[in-house]
Amino acid sequence: MNVFIIGLGLVGGSFALDIQQAFKNATIYGIDSNEEHGNLSLERGIIHQKAVFSELSNADIVIIAIPVDVSQEVILKTLDIISDDCLVFDAGSTKEQICNVIKNHPKRRNFLATHPIAGTEFSGPNAALINLFRNKTNIICEVEKTAFKLQEKALEIFSKLGMRIRYMDPKSHDKHIAYVSHLSHISSFMLGKTVIEKEKNERDIFDMAGSGFASTVRLAKSSPAMWTPIFEQNKENVIESLNEYIHNLQQFKTLLEEKNFPEIYTEMENTNYIKQILNGILEGIPQQ
Amino acid sequence: MNVFIIGLGLVGGSFALDIQQAFKNATIYGIDSNEEHGNLSLERGIIHQKAVFSELSNADIVIIAIPVDVSQEVILKTLDIISDDCLVFDAGSTKEQICNVIKNHPKRRNFLATHPIAGTEFSGPNAALINLFRNKTNIICEVEKTAFKLQEKALEIFSKLGMRIRYMDPKSHDKHIAYVSHLSHISSFMLGKTVIEKEKNERDIFDMAGSGFASTVRLAKSSPAMWTPIFEQNKENVIESLNEYIHNLQQFKTLLEEKNFPEIYTEMENTNYIKQILNGILEGIPQQ
Repeated sequence: MNVFIIGLGLVGGSFALDIQQAFKNATIYGIDSNEEHGNLSLERGIIHQKAVFSELSNADIVIIAIPVDVSQEVILKTLDIISDDCLVFDAGSTKEQICNVIKNHPKRRNFLATHPIAGTEFSGPNAALINLFRNKTNIICEVEKTAFKLQEKALEIFSKLGMRIRYMDPKSHDKHIAYVSHLSHISSFMLGKTVIEKEKNERDIFDMAGSGFASTVRLAKSSPAMWTPIFEQNKENVIESLNEYIHNLQQFKTLLEEKNFPEIYTEMENTNYIKQILNGILEGIPQQ
Repeated sequence: MNVFIIGLGLVGGSFALDIQQAFKNATIYGIDSNEEHGNLSLERGIIHQKAVFSELSNADIVIIAIPVDVSQEVILKTLDIISDDCLVFDAGSTKEQICNVIKNHPKRRNFLATHPIAGTEFSGPNAALINLFRNKTNIICEVEKTAFKLQEKALEIFSKLGMRIRYMDPKSHDKHIAYVSHLSHISSFMLGKTVIEKEKNERDIFDMAGSGFASTVRLAKSSPAMWTPIFEQNKENVIESLNEYIHNLQQFKTLLEEKNFPEIYTEMENTNYIKQILNGILEGIPQQ
């Protein structure tokens, strides 16, 4: 089984590691525009061989794990090259645009639009992790547009890697993910920015910040190259979520200004309900 | 050595556990307005005995770890009862009001104003942890107002528990802590609120939210009883930090609306600088 991974970062590298484990007959080929990433992946045994696009004609499976702006062009290019039996899936954090871009491609039925909700704030081949996908959700969009036997092939991989599957239309995916993922990144980046601006003297931050701050600001370490195109493609939903977030912050500030502490208590008490939700999320997810 | 802990929650309970380990001659007495907390602490071996306020006259050390609104009255009451050689310290997250309230008390020199920056989002005796304070910062305010031999006694405890000490005036403490701690809690609570409001159907959140969301929203599990009085006492600084945070979020939203993605990239790239700061914070702190 020839598996080609385009994009040898955290997600692509982790797919490579897990597929090696799960499919002993798999040969993993790696393609990355950054030559260093290719060499590093080879050295670390993440891939068996470096490859180039023209070799995709020999692929059984192609996994595309690159920033969502460049992935559009790369997916189209890949579909042009592959054989009729090859499965191509992506891992991007936005789904509406890509489903739209490829909808009329003659090889549309070779493509499966997926979003494995797994990752850390780190990037590059050194961030690749064994078992990254275990117990994580993988959202599949427009499954009916993929050839049935290729759906089966994909589900076999996702199942062996330990993922839970959820089916969703691309529009709903992008709307919900703006709230539960994209907004978290912005809130974290802007928290980091606010504190850095204020605390010119970093020793003060270092000395006074505890694990609570570290947890809340962790996503501000994420890669701008990955996140800028996500925000671009999901602009409308992200702006909507930001409007609601800013509104809630302003309302909280007004309660402070009005010294309405009973209502502040109630707001926090109601939001403690997040505990039940998080207990669900964290089942089986290693804490970071 | 008779150590009285007033408030058998996460912080008080953790002090009790560590002091038992570090000082084999210590007898730990516990006082809590919640009888269940007292009984639970006794059962779990967190304290050796339950006690009442009048017994504080036998105390060598009193640790006050209760919400910052009630702690003012309790500290004054404690200072009224204790002997001349007794050390009293608190653990509150605000320092200006308490230093002001006790400044003219005849036993001012028996009191040390401290803020151990350690905790989790959990509360109550079941949240108490051994080694909670190891490698954490403990901010001491107005050290010069505490009797020298009682300073020494306190430092011996903090040192045996593995804490780093930083000295700071109460005003600066409250100003900085608004940014690196109090603001994180509000950003997290309001993120939780925004997502809960939007996602009435919790299965959607559960299925799509990953460890990134869990990390960013973790502090929204915190206790309203602890946090409402902190926000009340540090209202001015918290409002200032919220203003700056909201301003940065609005600016980010404007960049999105204007499709200024190069500037969005730059904002995130600049904020990645938080990595260096967090590497400092996380040295020796268990990741959560």
